[in-house]
Amino acid sequence: MKNRPIGVFDSGLGGLTVVKQIKKFLPHEDVVYLGDTARVPYGTRSKETIIKFSFEDANFLLKKNAKCIVIACNTASALAGKELEKELKTPVFDVISPTLKYARSVAKNNKIGVIGTRGTIGSGAYTVDFATPCPLFVPFIEEGNVDSEALKIIVKKYLSYFDGKNIDILILGCTHYPIIQNIIQKEIGKNVKLIDPGMAVAEELKYSLTKNGLLNGQKRSGKINYFVTDLTDRFTKVAEMFLGEKIKGRINKVSVD
Amino acid sequence: MKNRPIGVFDSGLGGLTVVKQIKKFLPHEDVVYLGDTARVPYGTRSKETIIKFSFEDANFLLKKNAKCIVIACNTASALAGKELEKELKTPVFDVISPTLKYARSVAKNNKIGVIGTRGTIGSGAYTVDFATPCPLFVPFIEEGNVDSEALKIIVKKYLSYFDGKNIDILILGCTHYPIIQNIIQKEIGKNVKLIDPGMAVAEELKYSLTKNGLLNGQKRSGKINYFVTDLTDRFTKVAEMFLGEKIKGRINKVSVD
Repeated sequence: MKNRPIGVFDSGLGGLTVVKQIKKFLPHEDVVYLGDTARVPYGTRSKETIIKFSFEDANFLLKKNAKCIVIACNTASALAGKELEKELKTPVFDVISPTLKYARSVAKNNKIGVIGTRGTIGSGAYTVDFATPCPLFVPFIEEGNVDSEALKIIVKKYLSYFDGKNIDILILGCTHYPIIQNIIQKEIGKNVKLIDPGMAVAEELKYSLTKNGLLNGQKRSGKINYFVTDLTDRFTKVAEMFLGEKIKGRINKVSVD
Repeated sequence: MKNRPIGVFDSGLGGLTVVKQIKKFLPHEDVVYLGDTARVPYGTRSKETIIKFSFEDANFLLKKNAKCIVIACNTASALAGKELEKELKTPVFDVISPTLKYARSVAKNNKIGVIGTRGTIGSGAYTVDFATPCPLFVPFIEEGNVDSEALKIIVKKYLSYFDGKNIDILILGCTHYPIIQNIIQKEIGKNVKLIDPGMAVAEELKYSLTKNGLLNGQKRSGKINYFVTDLTDRFTKVAEMFLGEKIKGRINKVSVD
């Protein structure tokens, strides 16, 4: 059991920022990653559709023998997390619960803000003081347009929502956002601490696997097995941006619907 | 036969700019519209996936008794148009062939440019002199962000590709783009004529239905029946932006996969 891989899914490739953190916290774990790139993004879709897609994604990972499922997508965590946790017999980790717990443990004046997709923010799953959607961040990041004047204008416009709200924590409630955290930090000011949910869920995962005797016992570094539902020429470029290193091994195209 | 509806599909709601033109050219025709909103956008996906989705969309419209199929999506026209025309027994109209024909008939110095999604431009289906992808236009337009400083910067950046190329025609090779044609026109200059493929395909459709005795004989105005694969709160707002008028009647959520 314990030497089985950790299953991680996301609507696309943004979840690789979570895998990056899992590799850091749990270097000996194998990972099987599914990116539903044929149907990305989830952030603009309805709850009903996101639940349907998320079950299909999770079931694929279970067939790949995952010992647990990490929902490396804030939108799917927000809109389908509870349903997956209830229905599946395998442990499910969403990115939101550990992030909220961590944010509350480090907040000074307890004024917490969150940014995310329309789906995530609209769901109210991040029960914090201030929340605002930033729907254009994902397309900019997916385009690799991460340092332009246009993006800076958009960042400024979206974050102006927090003006005068005196937050001390800002949760990056979308797995894409760590890629532009420097621009966000510059705009929101250095007194606001940014939290990457990938880090929070990786820490939670380490705690839980340790407690339950489910840490992988192998000595070698963990391997990542990549599956996507659509494969384009841009895969490697975009994936490596999120993972922060070269992709090793074969990328497998699969159907999950 | 002739009183059956015209079937129109698009990856999402952008195809309603084509429906708008069909209503103008063929006011007595009924239309059955399918927007594959659960899987929009198609513009960033692979040819294989776009062909699969397009067949599912077209087959849905055939079950709804469509007398012909209009592919109101440049990406699907570019990557799946030939396949649909070959396999289906019902007449298929893609948006690209009539647009190219029209563009060549009005070009003065015969220097034609086109802008579109990565999928459309990468396919080479628009066999013109100059082509460049504008991948961020769709997310901006879908957000209703159609008049911002950020968008103007993006428009300027993308269209700078045409600097010094002396085009006299620019094809708006994505059904979303007519929404921002004023900004595009201002940037590219008033000597460049913009062509909306919706207009070209509606004219072609009128010619073909007339020639084949397939015009709807009814006296009343045509009705539109809307189907989508996902339905969110934002549907009406976004749909009316593309259609240019109020949506009448019920919107039906369906599954096509």
